[in-house]
Amino acid sequence: MNTVSATSESAVAAIAGKRVLIVYAHPEPESLNGALKDAMREHLLARGHQVEVSDLYAMQWKAGVDAADFPQRDPAAKLVVPVDSRRAFDGDALTADVRAEQDKLRWADALILQFPLWWFSMPAILKGWFDRVYAYGFAYGVGEHSDRHWGDRYGEGRLAGKRALVSVTAGGWQEHYSPRGINGPIEDMLFPINHGVLHYPGFDVLPSFVVYRTGKVDGPAFAAIRERLGERLDRLWTDAPIAYRRQNAGDYEVPALTLRPGLERPGTHGFALHVGDSAGAVFE
Amino acid sequence: MNTVSATSESAVAAIAGKRVLIVYAHPEPESLNGALKDAMREHLLARGHQVEVSDLYAMQWKAGVDAADFPQRDPAAKLVVPVDSRRAFDGDALTADVRAEQDKLRWADALILQFPLWWFSMPAILKGWFDRVYAYGFAYGVGEHSDRHWGDRYGEGRLAGKRALVSVTAGGWQEHYSPRGINGPIEDMLFPINHGVLHYPGFDVLPSFVVYRTGKVDGPAFAAIRERLGERLDRLWTDAPIAYRRQNAGDYEVPALTLRPGLERPGTHGFALHVGDSAGAVFE
Repeated sequence: MNTVSATSESAVAAIAGKRVLIVYAHPEPESLNGALKDAMREHLLARGHQVEVSDLYAMQWKAGVDAADFPQRDPAAKLVVPVDSRRAFDGDALTADVRAEQDKLRWADALILQFPLWWFSMPAILKGWFDRVYAYGFAYGVGEHSDRHWGDRYGEGRLAGKRALVSVTAGGWQEHYSPRGINGPIEDMLFPINHGVLHYPGFDVLPSFVVYRTGKVDGPAFAAIRERLGERLDRLWTDAPIAYRRQNAGDYEVPALTLRPGLERPGTHGFALHVGDSAGAVFE
Repeated sequence: MNTVSATSESAVAAIAGKRVLIVYAHPEPESLNGALKDAMREHLLARGHQVEVSDLYAMQWKAGVDAADFPQRDPAAKLVVPVDSRRAFDGDALTADVRAEQDKLRWADALILQFPLWWFSMPAILKGWFDRVYAYGFAYGVGEHSDRHWGDRYGEGRLAGKRALVSVTAGGWQEHYSPRGINGPIEDMLFPINHGVLHYPGFDVLPSFVVYRTGKVDGPAFAAIRERLGERLDRLWTDAPIAYRRQNAGDYEVPALTLRPGLERPGTHGFALHVGDSAGAVFE
């Protein structure tokens, strides 16, 4: 916990005035997730930042991608999601709810997700936020797609230069998510989100903040969690992001997009191959 | 492709009369996913099996878990999802849509999921099928939870003895999902689903069926895919499942649920630790 001393009060003050979007997905305002969302908002405001909260349940967010997402399309034509999404994005013809969330992403310097780990991933309503807000041309289908270049993605894209943090709660024990734990290592569990959803359109992704054994969090435990989270928020602008490799910076064969031989850190396999040499902690 | 010869016509006929539930998640009936779902249904019926299809978009499946899922709860009380879910399941008081899907799962000998890989996971509507149908007492919270035994799960549970198969389509190239591919290996990408969603409540999970580069699938390509899928369906009852370890069969320390030292296959790490020695192909 003494890592917080690395960030002096003056350093924290010097980076006031940032803009943070919190996307929050829990049906119960009095839940642990609701309390964490409130604590983050209060802490960031007290530090002089601006905060927007997208409370997906309160907004009654529509989770499913369907033809109604593209109101100007020919209703008799076959729906082809990337094609219809591209046309609607290019023509500024996405639905108002989706355009509002895209505007929040453009506005934000940082995105924070607050959600419970349900079946080892996001709740459906949050998955549906990404499925719908991440339109073709906005979060994918950006840049040339050919045998020479497969998109501006994984470190490039419209959300490059912004930071992202996943804050997640799990009912199970920390050991169950440890390197030899039965659920699989938490950093691998979250890789499809941190790398596949957040790094893909350009975010610099910070090590995730995880609360385990949620059923055991009483008042004193919550106070400690809140303090630990506040320290993480104070370092939101200074912590090293996970050192995911950039797709178009030379580490990958083209067009296969396989990691070039010999670049892996010793002993790494699978998802971990995509974290480069300069990696700080992948996880706090 | 000559592996199909291992299953003779008579062997296929001998295992007719099984019950298969296909859960399908795509908004366009004329899509590749829709065609694969139709092809599976026709193939299984022609082999003498019974087939139920849950077409989630056609059913307008509600994706979000919320208080309305537990109609008999005290509306003034704080919603605690596992507690409310348990009470409603125990009291046979879940909503009719959820109970109908649970009945289909009880009925089925095999579950097949057909969906497009959106942001490296399930579409929201399918995630919401699991979030809601997998009630406490039905798919989790089964068996003793203590420091001596953390549930009947990962190979045990109410769905033990049934088989499951993920059939998924991806826009990207197969190389992008290869062991060194930029998206990460497909078997790791699907581990939170195959292991965390399907093996958890007891399913024996077959290696996934994946179609890549969906934008390039023309008529002849679809005919080949359909043939390959038919061969997989003929082996649905005879193929070796992924050899995920059973939680309560001695491989894990209790209560940490970490894999005991020395049990790993040489060179394995992360998710792959949880596939035991008798593993056949994790992936076709």
